[in-house]
Amino acid sequence: MSYFENFIKANQAYIDRHGTAHLPIKPKTKVAIITCMDARLHVAPALGLDLGDAHILRNAGGRVTEDMIRSLVISQQQLGTQEVVVLHHTDCGAQTFKNADFVADLEERFQVNLQDKNFLPFTDVEESVRQDVALLKDSPLIPDDITIFGAIYDVDTGRISPVQ
Amino acid sequence: MSYFENFIKANQAYIDRHGTAHLPIKPKTKVAIITCMDARLHVAPALGLDLGDAHILRNAGGRVTEDMIRSLVISQQQLGTQEVVVLHHTDCGAQTFKNADFVADLEERFQVNLQDKNFLPFTDVEESVRQDVALLKDSPLIPDDITIFGAIYDVDTGRISPVQ
Repeated sequence: MSYFENFIKANQAYIDRHGTAHLPIKPKTKVAIITCMDARLHVAPALGLDLGDAHILRNAGGRVTEDMIRSLVISQQQLGTQEVVVLHHTDCGAQTFKNADFVADLEERFQVNLQDKNFLPFTDVEESVRQDVALLKDSPLIPDDITIFGAIYDVDTGRISPVQ
Repeated sequence: MSYFENFIKANQAYIDRHGTAHLPIKPKTKVAIITCMDARLHVAPALGLDLGDAHILRNAGGRVTEDMIRSLVISQQQLGTQEVVVLHHTDCGAQTFKNADFVADLEERFQVNLQDKNFLPFTDVEESVRQDVALLKDSPLIPDDITIFGAIYDVDTGRISPVQ
């Protein structure tokens, strides 16, 4: 028994609530949010987003990677977003390991050579937000007139606090 | 005026509803969902997910990239997930451009050399799901006992349909 089957069942009730409506492909608020995959963060209710409001990009840690830049370029150039929020959070899985140990464990378990692969762990969540905001500001593919904010989500309280 | 300030205001009401509760860092259902950043897809209600239930990974298209593999490895090895759902959708932004034209436009606009950069557009959404499920099954870092499903979300109806 997989959870996928449960999701398909749960989706039936959602279809009834959703109804049929074609919203525009371009996000209404012109915002893209980069955040973590963490299960304790539901981005739409935490930020008060309606369906169609904003792009939501998520990976382990909410880190600014080449793939997040690829996605943001499409978000901005094809779909008109003009603002980015980098939202990391407390008690993150990216704070649960050291890269060198993690890579060594994986190389042994999977019998692969990962060379200098960086799984992008961090220790200080304010620092990781600042680093990733800086990566966006330095990217040659992100225009200077894009507004970029950093913030932290508290998984215990649901509170979002700006990072200066 | 930025939308970020609106989000911070909207978050105040969410904090009141959230209350204080420490959920486990490991997702309850042991599922990770890879999907698109599209604004018309709110993953948690569409799949009936409660807070703490599942990892949600999102990029442009919901494509399986090196960064998604990085994130899944952390999800599986550090945080115990055992099932993956690749969920693409109708009317995707990744269907709005051809890679060669997009790269040429970006190179002119930003005065950069993007070489053979692939922004991962697709035309057929069932085919893109199958391709990405295959990438996961072929990855040396994804164990064979991880269950992998593919599906498509219809942005007009909210319906999720399995892809075989």
